[in-house]
Amino acid sequence: MNIQRDDDEYRYKKVEQEISKHIHAGDLTPGDKLPSLRQMSSNLKVSISTVSHAYEELEKRGLIESRPRSGYFVRSEFRKIPTPIVKPATMLEPHTVTKNKLIQTALETVGNKKLLPLGVVCPGSELLPTKHLAKIMTAVVKENPALSMEYESIAGNLQLRRQIAFRSVDCGSNITADELMITIGAMEALYISLRSLTRAGDLVLIQSPTYYCFLQLVESLGLRALEIPSCPKNGINTEELAAAVKKFDIKACILSPNFNNPDGGLTPDDAKKEIVKLLAEKDIPLVEDDVYGDIYFGDTRPRTFKSFDRKGGVLLCSSFSKTISPGYRIGWLAPGRFLDKAMEIKATTNVSCASPTQMATARYLKDAHFDRHLKKLRLAMKEQMTKMRTEIALSFPKGTKVTDPKGGSVLWVELPAGTDGVKLFFRAKEEGIGIVPGSVFSTRDAFSNYIRLSSGSPWSDAIQNGIKRLGELALM
Amino acid sequence: MNIQRDDDEYRYKKVEQEISKHIHAGDLTPGDKLPSLRQMSSNLKVSISTVSHAYEELEKRGLIESRPRSGYFVRSEFRKIPTPIVKPATMLEPHTVTKNKLIQTALETVGNKKLLPLGVVCPGSELLPTKHLAKIMTAVVKENPALSMEYESIAGNLQLRRQIAFRSVDCGSNITADELMITIGAMEALYISLRSLTRAGDLVLIQSPTYYCFLQLVESLGLRALEIPSCPKNGINTEELAAAVKKFDIKACILSPNFNNPDGGLTPDDAKKEIVKLLAEKDIPLVEDDVYGDIYFGDTRPRTFKSFDRKGGVLLCSSFSKTISPGYRIGWLAPGRFLDKAMEIKATTNVSCASPTQMATARYLKDAHFDRHLKKLRLAMKEQMTKMRTEIALSFPKGTKVTDPKGGSVLWVELPAGTDGVKLFFRAKEEGIGIVPGSVFSTRDAFSNYIRLSSGSPWSDAIQNGIKRLGELALM
Repeated sequence: MNIQRDDDEYRYKKVEQEISKHIHAGDLTPGDKLPSLRQMSSNLKVSISTVSHAYEELEKRGLIESRPRSGYFVRSEFRKIPTPIVKPATMLEPHTVTKNKLIQTALETVGNKKLLPLGVVCPGSELLPTKHLAKIMTAVVKENPALSMEYESIAGNLQLRRQIAFRSVDCGSNITADELMITIGAMEALYISLRSLTRAGDLVLIQSPTYYCFLQLVESLGLRALEIPSCPKNGINTEELAAAVKKFDIKACILSPNFNNPDGGLTPDDAKKEIVKLLAEKDIPLVEDDVYGDIYFGDTRPRTFKSFDRKGGVLLCSSFSKTISPGYRIGWLAPGRFLDKAMEIKATTNVSCASPTQMATARYLKDAHFDRHLKKLRLAMKEQMTKMRTEIALSFPKGTKVTDPKGGSVLWVELPAGTDGVKLFFRAKEEGIGIVPGSVFSTRDAFSNYIRLSSGSPWSDAIQNGIKRLGELALM
Repeated sequence: MNIQRDDDEYRYKKVEQEISKHIHAGDLTPGDKLPSLRQMSSNLKVSISTVSHAYEELEKRGLIESRPRSGYFVRSEFRKIPTPIVKPATMLEPHTVTKNKLIQTALETVGNKKLLPLGVVCPGSELLPTKHLAKIMTAVVKENPALSMEYESIAGNLQLRRQIAFRSVDCGSNITADELMITIGAMEALYISLRSLTRAGDLVLIQSPTYYCFLQLVESLGLRALEIPSCPKNGINTEELAAAVKKFDIKACILSPNFNNPDGGLTPDDAKKEIVKLLAEKDIPLVEDDVYGDIYFGDTRPRTFKSFDRKGGVLLCSSFSKTISPGYRIGWLAPGRFLDKAMEIKATTNVSCASPTQMATARYLKDAHFDRHLKKLRLAMKEQMTKMRTEIALSFPKGTKVTDPKGGSVLWVELPAGTDGVKLFFRAKEEGIGIVPGSVFSTRDAFSNYIRLSSGSPWSDAIQNGIKRLGELALM
């Protein structure tokens, strides 16, 4: 364990995270004594005051306690919280998606700004470059007053596409500006992809659980869905996928390899490579959702499926909604060999995206603010998630399990068998707490005792109390 | 004829327009003497200098000539240019739409900013409130820096919807904010409407000619089209429509009653009422495109189908792209009784529109700038169109016919039989002139000797020369 020294102000947070990770992982169990300040300082090559600051924070969070003249100990009440186990893989039957009504209700709740935002996946506004973007938008409008006067091209603003192409090197995708189109968020990228690849009645493969808006789109386009189990730890199961494409006539796969919403699963890069190869052999297009790819907690950015794509069969969908601005609605699509078809669909759906927001985003990226911002955002998201996990461990009923994602901003909570996630959702809503019930993440009767919690908002008393109250409600 | 006195600076233009209208209509023929300045001044109740100014302008435009000591005469070279005649109504067979490739080429040409803009339908940027909007956007961003931070609701910004609802009184529509949703231009409104009403294979009724993007959307959604003839003078033919809905199983109609693109046809309000009644009886939804409704040249705003709708069967689509800002991509949809379905489709297509452009548009409308701006815009559009008609009359081959729309911004030109509009389109493109060939406005082999010219840009030598050159090219 060696704490990087590149970010002074956050050093104690890294110490704090490192220790809480070991507590959550069970390396340190309730009652265990922590190393002395001096010893820890020497181990981690940080100052004693940094360690002391970290210990204080851990104590505040209820993870450890100080005993007079004895030092620091893992709190005895702290119960190690296991991560959900994926049930043995069973080949599932294709389903017609019919969950739209419940999803609609969940969506309305997520959008309800009066509720405690444990349902909204976006980072809290304090974590986004709000003022910076406002400044840039003002400058952009001043320098280009005629911005409002012209339609953007169907593919979108060239400067913006160049910036995205330039950044695609990070995830190994290596896309050029010509291979990209700007979309209204990642949602439109996904919509354009599915319209390009399928027609009503077709079967698409999705992972389970999967983001409910994907299910809603699948239902809306009259498609059928085949679910293969996804695992919070290792993401998409390659064997399951191979068996499924062998057995069924699948027209497209929709997969989120990096921090799947809701279970946070990260598919290893090796598995990604294998999946791309497998699908290329079968000539099955792969729609990749990478909206959380930039919010990784580890040292390196996870790669995309697209980065292994040699035949143009991967359609990469992403956006800046989770990292810069939800309100700008700027996403993008690298549709591989389906570019012509995708452009045609964009043209007939809404012609092109708004000009000012595209240009402001391009400028923000060009001035190299993004990397610095992302670095801070990742650290904050990691910290918030750790705090939320801890509070769940302290407050939720015995038997609760919660994921331990390596990125993203959601926790997938498995409540004790028999607990009804939908009932909890409605109860929480009545008390002003917004969450999402687990069952909207599948086409089947699954995940009824699950809920998804977003840890996107900065930790606060209100959120801590909300989690506490949820724990009580789950017991009722 | 009585010239209104409410707009001093444009008074002479009204005189000028009035006279040229009579020349175009054939009321005044080549060689006819115009009334003296004094007589005209007394007739129109305007000053002699106003009439003199108007006569000078008409002379500059080549419509009239002054003969020493004799007065003003209609130029003998001036050939009265007839408007196209609609062929006898024949019931058409449903068609599968397959024109996308040619339309794609036409679209690229329209978007090519290096070409003379006789293809682009939008008003020239000089005519739009560019600076004003930029100022408002700056203020909006300054006052609401957090604008970028939140998703708008699926229905869109409430302030904007309220402004649109408030303005809907003008066209008799009387929509409330709750019945409206904001879309990415009118194109998305149309897309959402068709997705709400139809499935692949369904038959939709359109008027012929119709805007090629509608055909492209119809093709893209796998629908079939039944065309009923539209007339540049009286728009949609009610009898034809009645016969069509009786004979065929039509799932939806797409109609542009106000200044149909490309033929400029205006369906009289009485006919609108009858059509709404007829379709309501048959329970056939009517998708109404009203993007040009605000650009009327007469005294009153034409009504919408929506204004006669009592059963929620009309889905009104419109936008600010032709009046305020093409680049903001702000449109709207009043989907009547299909609101729930429409919201579901919006949610699964792109969730919501960008926040800043919505808020800026709402502010622009709220500060009551719009009506003043529209008044000027209408006058300018009318003037430009008259000048273009005149130049076509002077420069195009004998046998050419051109429409005389009462609003909008396009002229529909019927070239002498045998002239190939597509060839002319490619020839013009080579010479840097952007036009649209007539055949993209129908699913059938029709309008091959037609072209559409946009008179949206302010009159200039470049445009005058472009029209002249087109006339020469049409002869080749």
